[in-house]
Amino acid sequence: MNREVCTAMVIEAKQEKQITYQHIAQAINRNIVWTTSAILGQNTFDATEAKIICEILDLDATVEKALQIFPEKGVTAIMPPTDPLIYRLYEIVLVYGETIKQVIHEKAGDGIMSAIDFTMDIEKEENPKGDRIKITLDGKFLPYKKW
Amino acid sequence: MNREVCTAMVIEAKQEKQITYQHIAQAINRNIVWTTSAILGQNTFDATEAKIICEILDLDATVEKALQIFPEKGVTAIMPPTDPLIYRLYEIVLVYGETIKQVIHEKAGDGIMSAIDFTMDIEKEENPKGDRIKITLDGKFLPYKKW
Amino acid sequence: MNREVCTAMVIEAKQEKQITYQHIAQAINRNIVWTTSAILGQNTFDATEAKIICEILDLDATVEKALQIFPEKGVTAIMPPTDPLIYRLYEIVLVYGETIKQVIHEKAGDGIMSAIDFTMDIEKEENPKGDRIKITLDGKFLPYKKW
Amino acid sequence: MNREVCTAMVIEAKQEKQITYQHIAQAINRNIVWTTSAILGQNTFDATEAKIICEILDLDATVEKALQIFPEKGVTAIMPPTDPLIYRLYEIVLVYGETIKQVIHEKAGDGIMSAIDFTMDIEKEENPKGDRIKITLDGKFLPYKKW
Amino acid sequence: MNREVCTAMVIEAKQEKQITYQHIAQAINRNIVWTTSAILGQNTFDATEAKIICEILDLDATVEKALQIFPEKGVTAIMPPTDPLIYRLYEIVLVYGETIKQVIHEKAGDGIMSAIDFTMDIEKEENPKGDRIKITLDGKFLPYKKW
Amino acid sequence: MNREVCTAMVIEAKQEKQITYQHIAQAINRNIVWTTSAILGQNTFDATEAKIICEILDLDATVEKALQIFPEKGVTAIMPPTDPLIYRLYEIVLVYGETIKQVIHEKAGDGIMSAIDFTMDIEKEENPKGDRIKITLDGKFLPYKKW
Amino acid sequence: MNREVCTAMVIEAKQEKQITYQHIAQAINRNIVWTTSAILGQNTFDATEAKIICEILDLDATVEKALQIFPEKGVTAIMPPTDPLIYRLYEIVLVYGETIKQVIHEKAGDGIMSAIDFTMDIEKEENPKGDRIKITLDGKFLPYKKW
Amino acid sequence: MNREVCTAMVIEAKQEKQITYQHIAQAINRNIVWTTSAILGQNTFDATEAKIICEILDLDATVEKALQIFPEKGVTAIMPPTDPLIYRLYEIVLVYGETIKQVIHEKAGDGIMSAIDFTMDIEKEENPKGDRIKITLDGKFLPYKKW
Amino acid sequence: MNREVCTAMVIEAKQEKQITYQHIAQAINRNIVWTTSAILGQNTFDATEAKIICEILDLDATVEKALQIFPEKGVTAIMPPTDPLIYRLYEIVLVYGETIKQVIHEKAGDGIMSAIDFTMDIEKEENPKGDRIKITLDGKFLPYKKW
Amino acid sequence: MNREVCTAMVIEAKQEKQITYQHIAQAINRNIVWTTSAILGQNTFDATEAKIICEILDLDATVEKALQIFPEKGVTAIMPPTDPLIYRLYEIVLVYGETIKQVIHEKAGDGIMSAIDFTMDIEKEENPKGDRIKITLDGKFLPYKKW
Repeated sequence: MNREVCTAMVIEAKQEKQITYQHIAQAINRNIVWTTSAILGQNTFDATEAKIICEILDLDATVEKALQIFPEKGVTAIMPPTDPLIYRLYEIVLVYGETIKQVIHEKAGDGIMSAIDFTMDIEKEENPKGDRIKITLDGKFLPYKKW
Repeated sequence: MNREVCTAMVIEAKQEKQITYQHIAQAINRNIVWTTSAILGQNTFDATEAKIICEILDLDATVEKALQIFPEKGVTAIMPPTDPLIYRLYEIVLVYGETIKQVIHEKAGDGIMSAIDFTMDIEKEENPKGDRIKITLDGKFLPYKKW
Repeated sequence: MNREVCTAMVIEAKQEKQITYQHIAQAINRNIVWTTSAILGQNTFDATEAKIICEILDLDATVEKALQIFPEKGVTAIMPPTDPLIYRLYEIVLVYGETIKQVIHEKAGDGIMSAIDFTMDIEKEENPKGDRIKITLDGKFLPYKKW
Repeated sequence: MNREVCTAMVIEAKQEKQITYQHIAQAINRNIVWTTSAILGQNTFDATEAKIICEILDLDATVEKALQIFPEKGVTAIMPPTDPLIYRLYEIVLVYGETIKQVIHEKAGDGIMSAIDFTMDIEKEENPKGDRIKITLDGKFLPYKKW
Repeated sequence: MNREVCTAMVIEAKQEKQITYQHIAQAINRNIVWTTSAILGQNTFDATEAKIICEILDLDATVEKALQIFPEKGVTAIMPPTDPLIYRLYEIVLVYGETIKQVIHEKAGDGIMSAIDFTMDIEKEENPKGDRIKITLDGKFLPYKKW
Repeated sequence: MNREVCTAMVIEAKQEKQITYQHIAQAINRNIVWTTSAILGQNTFDATEAKIICEILDLDATVEKALQIFPEKGVTAIMPPTDPLIYRLYEIVLVYGETIKQVIHEKAGDGIMSAIDFTMDIEKEENPKGDRIKITLDGKFLPYKKW
Repeated sequence: MNREVCTAMVIEAKQEKQITYQHIAQAINRNIVWTTSAILGQNTFDATEAKIICEILDLDATVEKALQIFPEKGVTAIMPPTDPLIYRLYEIVLVYGETIKQVIHEKAGDGIMSAIDFTMDIEKEENPKGDRIKITLDGKFLPYKKW
Repeated sequence: MNREVCTAMVIEAKQEKQITYQHIAQAINRNIVWTTSAILGQNTFDATEAKIICEILDLDATVEKALQIFPEKGVTAIMPPTDPLIYRLYEIVLVYGETIKQVIHEKAGDGIMSAIDFTMDIEKEENPKGDRIKITLDGKFLPYKKW
Repeated sequence: MNREVCTAMVIEAKQEKQITYQHIAQAINRNIVWTTSAILGQNTFDATEAKIICEILDLDATVEKALQIFPEKGVTAIMPPTDPLIYRLYEIVLVYGETIKQVIHEKAGDGIMSAIDFTMDIEKEENPKGDRIKITLDGKFLPYKKW
Repeated sequence: MNREVCTAMVIEAKQEKQITYQHIAQAINRNIVWTTSAILGQNTFDATEAKIICEILDLDATVEKALQIFPEKGVTAIMPPTDPLIYRLYEIVLVYGETIKQVIHEKAGDGIMSAIDFTMDIEKEENPKGDRIKITLDGKFLPYKKW
């Protein structure tokens, strides 16, 4: 079973059983963002995690094995995104990308924020003027090596 | 004077006088991220802010006026970005865009995080294993209207 | 059942039974434009709406459930559009986009018209020189936040 | 003088003299939307209109002549748009294009809404929950000819 | 049955029965060009026409119904065209597009030739130096509306 | 002097002297369509033609020489066209390209209509229901060679 | 049976029976290049040729008929080519295209080399320093028509 | 002086002095195709060749030096080509690329025809039915290395 | 059986039997990099190699035969790559491509590094500060031929 | 002075003085590859390095300052590359990218090779069968973080 078929089966089972990403994340003791990304085929579960997920969703050993494949990342994304929610993130890179570059360089010198040694958190904050979404990106600063 | 010429003049003056974005931000009492984005022509200064900036950088009234034009946003960005720092942000959208969509929908229902009623903060966190960059995106949740 | 399959089934049933979008819209007490967009997988029905639609079209509970999934928007659109009717809308953005930007900025300052807190209406107006189509877009003005 | 240079000169003069599009529109007795589009090089002024505009903005006969050239339309637009305001219009075509097609076909049969025999109006509506922008597109319905 | 499946079935039946487009066109009393375009899913047959075609090609009522759907136009075209015959038409637009614009503007003022209120004819002319193809495009002149 | 500069100079002189393409075409005894295309840098004038044109427009020998360069064709065209008039021609290829292919094959066998051994004519036809534009494309039929 | 399915069946039969393109070419008395191109769906076999090929490869009458369809050319090609062998040909056009244009114009005047009234030959030449491939393109010179 | 400026100066001088590529090629004892490609900035002249060319065209030492720079190849090419002559070459790759791959593999095994260890010749052949152009591509066969 | 199906079957068998690329490479006495590329359909196995692989993976003669087809290279790659690991390689070409060109020209003159007469090696080097990956590209220098 | 102008001035001075990249690299005690990349505006010199380079090339303090700007990387690259030397590197990613991914994953697990904490070396190896180029890429292995 390849990873795409596996992803589709997990999502279908999850919908049918009405189980949330948060529930699965807690069961494997991981953050909801990382767990969701791994279910969507952008990160890799280890054997223990894969087993727990398949028990929760009542899926067999083929799925369990496929959840441990190192995935091809990003292949299902559409760029520029057509979905308004994802497009707004793209627009932030379009409009603020150079700003982020200048501010990081001013604060930390020539280098980048890693997207590999990296974590993300997403929170909803209730607010009387309208709730807000808070996304926190946290990546290691990697200075450019000279040689 | 159009906005592009104005941006180039501000950046050149800033480099020559060795003035930081942080310094300008404090002078106009705004966050460094917003200030940098406005200098780079992605947001608009009001009359008071424009005046202070031109005093700091010793620029004339034409620049002061041009800093108040509502800019065409995003026109100088290259997508996909070629610069590694900006590309990593793009990659986060590519790899985690759908994840963010699912988590926001699970937490807040059908809607988006606004990129207009929106603020951003960037911090460097010192860390013995290597410093880290923390970017916080904070946008209003806008539910899809039905009619 | 994913949303694409669901959409195809609804459209097929609708064609077979010769039921109009207007008829469905009235049954769920919504505007024809919003109703059509939701059938085409660009908006989400709530449980009551989904139930009524499936009764009208004689579709089962799987479809009813799938109509309530938060959809990936815009994925089936072709840009630039190849269909002449849709292309004319695209052409209006191409030719009049900057005009609309300038007029909104002159009337309301720096900000955008929301496409989320947004409604649309479409009317045919009879006219002896040839009937006319009138499309009204109505979105909340969102001023750019400064921080 | 070609049309691009002419457009740049009119906009610079307009900015310097702090004259609004509305003011120019009234002087030539036309709608602000059409007038703005013609200043931006997307429509053509007649001799009388061109003369009035050059008097208001204190521009010479070369500009007056150039304002009457039939322009190449749409050449300065960026698609997909990078500016958030214009992108939201594009997103409406992306998300609702097929919807508009189906509703027009249901109401008027096989044909299109003309973007040539066409007018547009833009209004700001004050609203305690936040002002709204209302854009009205009004185009002739052209049925497909059979032969 | 959607329109794409319908098109494939008509073409297969036509090939099997060795019936020409000309033959079908005469049976429904229409021009061969329009008839061919409608068979290929670019125009819509009315009920009478659809019935005659299905009788000639021995196809059932589902096809008859599908031939009357208002089609999504242009979706199967490849642009730029890879087929040499179709590319030559594209090349004519590439090389002579601006020429046609200038000549129409000189002859008729600011406006366009409609591609909707439009007919086309294709003839082969025998010629001792090599036969020639003559394509005649005939569209209504639509002047740009001012408002 | 390269061909692009030459084209710009001819068009500017033509505008200033208010001379039509038709007038130039008659002076060199050629069709207005071919003449316009050659002025726009898509065909080549011979020495006699170039001389006459430069006399009419009062241009010097450098222009006369440059008008005889074999041009790079199509380089200034934008595809897909943004100008509505030129787009309608593109749309005809998009919507009717395959139709034209099938009709030519049915009438003349496997081959193409040449865009080189080719002429075009454009006429305005007055019509009480609205004037019409008639474009006639006439190209040699080239059968595919077998070897 | 459409042409794509037909092509796949011929290639599979050819592989299974270990028959070369050269063998098929000789059987129908044509050049290996033309024969290969026609098998790959870029040229059309006549009835006799189709019959011989189907006898050699033991294929039925449906294939025989499909081999005589006038194909859509070039639709399976990837441009720019990803396969190194085909890319080298593309690179020759990229690097030497303008050179070929200038040399043909210098030798034969304004016109093109036809790709329709055209033959090609491919030979391997043994060479102690490494074998060489020789491709000969031979097309009719078509001068641009003036009118 | 960079290579692009150098190329423009050589071509202008060549046009002014009405000197052919053939004449320059003979003066440096090279093939007209290679010579033309090197003038157009796709190959490199050695010191002796550069000197002869500058003497013929009466150009100074800066040009002479610039003609010896190793050029960035292919940067001025437009792909797909808009010029009909160059497009026909592109079309040959589009239509016959896979054919050439199969024939070379059948004749010589797995490998490519080099575009570096490569020569090209272009001839006009007079023919009563219309002159023909013959282009011969001759490249080393490079077998894929296994390791 | 075509090469794509064959690749999928080999990978599935390899996963099921938990056999490494290294193990297969040793069995056929080839480098792991070359072996992996050939399994992924980018190089060709000879009859002996194909036989050994099918024995190890317990696959039949159809696969064995298909492994010997000369493949279409690069067709499954996504460019720009979406997978972060592959993108980093692409980024190296983006950022350092011109650097590599200049250094090779300075060291070896005008020519290229062959990607056909070419080998590659990949090693992991253990390192207390974090392991490193070392990729060595080794290609024949091919000087540009003059003629 | 921006970085692009600075780069052009350094390259022109280097050409005029006939100084090699190797010479500059030795003067600042760095590898030729890194030095060349920094001159080409893909890496940043520190103050001491910039001073030495400007002394060698006889350039003033404005250049010295500009060499220390953190550059926008990759903006001048053309992708896919048109230059054959750079294209071959791109082709290696196209053909072997997935291979490299699989081999790194097999040797080191789920993670990437950094292109930031990264060095490169380029050597020419003399060889009687034709010299070879050896490029060594050496990057830190970054395992994907789980959270």
